[in-house]
Amino acid sequence: MKKVNRRTWLSGAATAAVAIAQTATAKAVQVGVPIDQLWADDPTKQPGGAPPGQVGTRSPFEKLVKNPSDISSRTPLQDLHGILTPSDLHFERHHNGVPAIDPAKHELLIHGMVDKPLVVTLADLKRFPSVSHIAFLECSGNFRTGKETLSPQDICGLTSQSEWTGVSLATLFREVGVRPGASWFLAEGGDAALMTRSIPVQKGWDDAIIAYAQNGEALRPEQGYPVRLFLPGWEGNTSVKWLRRIELGDAPWQTREETSKYTEAVGDGKIRQFSFDIDARSIITFPAYPAPVQRGWIEIRGLAWSGRGTIERVEISTDAGKSWQVATLQQPVLDKAHTRFRLLWHWNGDETEIMSRAVDSTGYVQPTYRQLLDARGGNSGYHMNPITAWQIKRDGRVLHRPEIR
Amino acid sequence: MKKVNRRTWLSGAATAAVAIAQTATAKAVQVGVPIDQLWADDPTKQPGGAPPGQVGTRSPFEKLVKNPSDISSRTPLQDLHGILTPSDLHFERHHNGVPAIDPAKHELLIHGMVDKPLVVTLADLKRFPSVSHIAFLECSGNFRTGKETLSPQDICGLTSQSEWTGVSLATLFREVGVRPGASWFLAEGGDAALMTRSIPVQKGWDDAIIAYAQNGEALRPEQGYPVRLFLPGWEGNTSVKWLRRIELGDAPWQTREETSKYTEAVGDGKIRQFSFDIDARSIITFPAYPAPVQRGWIEIRGLAWSGRGTIERVEISTDAGKSWQVATLQQPVLDKAHTRFRLLWHWNGDETEIMSRAVDSTGYVQPTYRQLLDARGGNSGYHMNPITAWQIKRDGRVLHRPEIR
Repeated sequence: MKKVNRRTWLSGAATAAVAIAQTATAKAVQVGVPIDQLWADDPTKQPGGAPPGQVGTRSPFEKLVKNPSDISSRTPLQDLHGILTPSDLHFERHHNGVPAIDPAKHELLIHGMVDKPLVVTLADLKRFPSVSHIAFLECSGNFRTGKETLSPQDICGLTSQSEWTGVSLATLFREVGVRPGASWFLAEGGDAALMTRSIPVQKGWDDAIIAYAQNGEALRPEQGYPVRLFLPGWEGNTSVKWLRRIELGDAPWQTREETSKYTEAVGDGKIRQFSFDIDARSIITFPAYPAPVQRGWIEIRGLAWSGRGTIERVEISTDAGKSWQVATLQQPVLDKAHTRFRLLWHWNGDETEIMSRAVDSTGYVQPTYRQLLDARGGNSGYHMNPITAWQIKRDGRVLHRPEIR
Repeated sequence: MKKVNRRTWLSGAATAAVAIAQTATAKAVQVGVPIDQLWADDPTKQPGGAPPGQVGTRSPFEKLVKNPSDISSRTPLQDLHGILTPSDLHFERHHNGVPAIDPAKHELLIHGMVDKPLVVTLADLKRFPSVSHIAFLECSGNFRTGKETLSPQDICGLTSQSEWTGVSLATLFREVGVRPGASWFLAEGGDAALMTRSIPVQKGWDDAIIAYAQNGEALRPEQGYPVRLFLPGWEGNTSVKWLRRIELGDAPWQTREETSKYTEAVGDGKIRQFSFDIDARSIITFPAYPAPVQRGWIEIRGLAWSGRGTIERVEISTDAGKSWQVATLQQPVLDKAHTRFRLLWHWNGDETEIMSRAVDSTGYVQPTYRQLLDARGGNSGYHMNPITAWQIKRDGRVLHRPEIR
């Protein structure tokens, strides 16, 4: 940021002309460059820039990547702004890769404890009344720690937010006539893993969506194209992608993904099963590794979310947890949605730690890592939502603080 | 949509097996195809689908295009759902193409009637307190009519919606110390057109954003990368892209784009200048040309928006304007934002006309085309927001109704 001396910056146009003339003179003297080539760096001297396109593009200067492993990829939270995730940067977690599905051939069967079993195509689904919900989707395994050089993407990049549009599952339940005794339904995906989860039928009546659109357009293939289940606020794997079958029944199916996987040891030999709700969580996305900071005013920014309702409050500590201040929440604060928080902080250059703590509309307070381990033991990596701290070093480096406190 | 006989559809898995076996038998008998090739159409038999990627992709089955001309391209409203526009489908309108700008070299000068003129880089801007606003952007020339074969994209595809993030211009005004007498500011773009507009300074204090992000990520080049002005609710050309200069003054500059362009003849030899606000408008996006409809229940869907506040109500007529019903608005209904409306309608197969009428929070009612022409004469194509009707033919064809009524 430069203060401008008004005598030299009389107007932008005049100044630009002066600057170009000076550059031209310098370069022309040196190498005899023709005058038009001297303007190569000035976009205002390039008439007829790129024309409008069939689809737009990302600037080649912007490198946004999800750093995929074999089974997942992560949203670069530290590089993003606001509350939405571009669809192509939505995290991925697959159980046997992304199937290539022709939407004209895809069918969804709804059967079991219903009066009228039904097969619906994508075209059928689009004829039903539709709903939209801006909400996050988070993988229950969304946590990493253990070293200082972890970014928000590394620590919790398995959460993303979109506007999901489709048919209320309740509408389809009424269409098929769900029988009174039905208390669970099975959702089955059309991928090679035949991903299956048992879901309490009440979630279907509450706010489940059979989604065919994300952020305005059709689902992306890696997000379940042409149709997925979307369960607002519930662990990601229950929002079964490439949905091809819903079966109503009176007990859970005890599938692989709810017995050997996606269960949590909670101590005393006990296992927590069907832990659907995503607990309230927050992460500071700036300052955060790997971007360094400068002394002075810093806007601390981050995301908070809860699967149980809205974010009521986010508190921020800039003194390693000794004192807390309330952050500003960007409006609108939506149900089961990423919420952007911000707090202005003056960093005096001393080494410190900053951290955020979310409180949701049920009164739940985001716990410390120590509290989580005390409550559950350390044998499960699912549903880990601890307060996450960043160390700010004197030289401006920002590092994850991996210690358990 | 098929009703299922439960005796044959005992379970999806069993049924799939039966279907595959039948197909296998039929094909094997015919051409001796090996069994594994018979599964080529079944995604659940293709282990190891596509792995997670650095960025996601759009399904090759989805053809979403903006049908560009030399100077503009249009959002395919009839193909989209919810309220958001994917960034690469945001409409474009350029005055001399899209410049290629290196963000490290881009500067924004703020000068004129200020105490401390300032040059800020993109990095500087990101250090200021930030704000986000989910809002539409509409070109003031967003209207076409005159023939039946026009889609929502053709008629009013020069409107799109994003979450914009950046610095409140008010914050920068305080930083530079805007002088009491300053009543206007000039915004200048860094494209070859040097696009310039004069804006009342009050808009800068109210809700103007110096935006560097759109839908979570950096602006796209065609949307002003690396930084644009964003004026919520105002005609699109005032949200100057590739912003490089803001000058404070005490009168409008009377630039080309506010004298020979973007002014409206309103009859009696009078010209309307500085008509910034986008008036309330709505369009039914389904049913709409070119997709035909089927007899029976139809969910009428569309978008409504107003540059003056929120959408209060959308009324729909399915009998050519004789009677009106109130549509359901998808929550949340946001300020100066596209709002999705829906109404269930049972079409009995008779020829008819359907249309929507928006009412905003100021009480303004979307006018008919006749009312607009009576008020302004027919010499301008700017700020045309008439009620738009679709003819439904007996055979299910849906056509634009171009007549002036």
